Amino acid sequence: VRRGRPTINKVWGEDKAILLGDYLLAKSEELVADTQNLRVIKLLAQTVMTISSGELNQAFSAFNLKQTRQQYLQRISGKTACLLSLATESGAILSQAPEKSVEALKGYGYNLGIAFQVVDDILDFIGTEEEMGKPIGSDLAQGTLTLPAILLLERYPEDNPVRRLFQNEDRQRNIELAMELVRNSSITQECYAVASDYCARACHNLSLLPDNASRRSLIKLADYVVKRRK
Amino acid sequence: VRRGRPTINKVWGEDKAILLGDYLLAKSEELVADTQNLRVIKLLAQTVMTISSGELNQAFSAFNLKQTRQQYLQRISGKTACLLSLATESGAILSQAPEKSVEALKGYGYNLGIAFQVVDDILDFIGTEEEMGKPIGSDLAQGTLTLPAILLLERYPEDNPVRRLFQNEDRQRNIELAMELVRNSSITQECYAVASDYCARACHNLSLLPDNASRRSLIKLADYVVKRRK
Repeated sequence: VRRGRPTINKVWGEDKAILLGDYLLAKSEELVADTQNLRVIKLLAQTVMTISSGELNQAFSAFNLKQTRQQYLQRISGKTACLLSLATESGAILSQAPEKSVEALKGYGYNLGIAFQVVDDILDFIGTEEEMGKPIGSDLAQGTLTLPAILLLERYPEDNPVRRLFQNEDRQRNIELAMELVRNSSITQECYAVASDYCARACHNLSLLPDNASRRSLIKLADYVVKRRK
Repeated sequence: VRRGRPTINKVWGEDKAILLGDYLLAKSEELVADTQNLRVIKLLAQTVMTISSGELNQAFSAFNLKQTRQQYLQRISGKTACLLSLATESGAILSQAPEKSVEALKGYGYNLGIAFQVVDDILDFIGTEEEMGKPIGSDLAQGTLTLPAILLLERYPEDNPVRRLFQNEDRQRNIELAMELVRNSSITQECYAVASDYCARACHNLSLLPDNASRRSLIKLADYVVKRRK
């Protein structure tokens, strides 16, 4: 379930969902080819390489307890952050913006992407399935260590539900325990502080751009990313 | 198993194999972007669209008995044929060949691809697992109707092991029966006649090119495609 609706994987099966994904990716490459801008064409290809190798990395580190904040930030930078910076950087290049503005918008997208992903990972602990339109606690269930889980492991290194879960003990019970511990501690706040910090960096990236409606929209978007509940 | 060795799907699992596939596809797009040739860049994107929608089509028509030779040829033209013509057409474009040579080499790749796929589909009935380095009879097992199976259905419209297999009766037994019937009839020859015809067309496409070592290699390749046992 995503956005409250069954996924293509569920409706058509995984084999067909993969093919549809390949088709859509190729379609986006065709559209980018139509811009005739070689820099943007190459940027898309390189971003897909970064994202797929990042996801591969994540898949190989599933159920591995030895992951630091640093590794987490690296992982999401090669996922959501580079996807969003692809969008903002490409937009700037195609608008023939000066190189400094291209760099500024690339940085904005990158930092916004980190903030967005940190909030997404928080909401997987503290959100509700109704609001999110997708199952909650799915990162832990899939063995993915996100920032809240890493902070929880730092705080309780020995007796920890995440540790027990990753050792395959009483999975559902330990997922619920971990979510409860995160909700009832300052970990949520600490994670939000990280997200807010990246949002502030994103807005700072915009400071060299002229103060107009477009810039105000981008700043509003950064505010929304931290405030959103879905 | 492929080429006698376990596949990535088997070794790493399907989720990681998909990500590796995405990575390799993006890598090829990066390499193509490096040619700076917009026509070839777009050709690659469009070919991936054709192949993925063709495979999607094939997945949706699995276990459907109502498929004609015509539909089969359409299906493999959007798969192997367009993949091989991508290679030959791109090579010609990047070598700055005159437009007539580009068309000739595109046609050669296309017809060679049809021939290659028909032979592949024959060998899935009459080859051996040892020679092929992959399981035999896998098309039928996956519910894919290829040329030998379509001819078998035309010849015995009522009582037919393929029909029974697709109705989910005694699967292994009916796969073996279908393979035996194809082996011991003129269907194999009939399919090889189709493959040889496309190889002849492929070689005919080369007739406007100068008679040199390169052209002779391409003609030898066409011969090999029909003669190969693996």
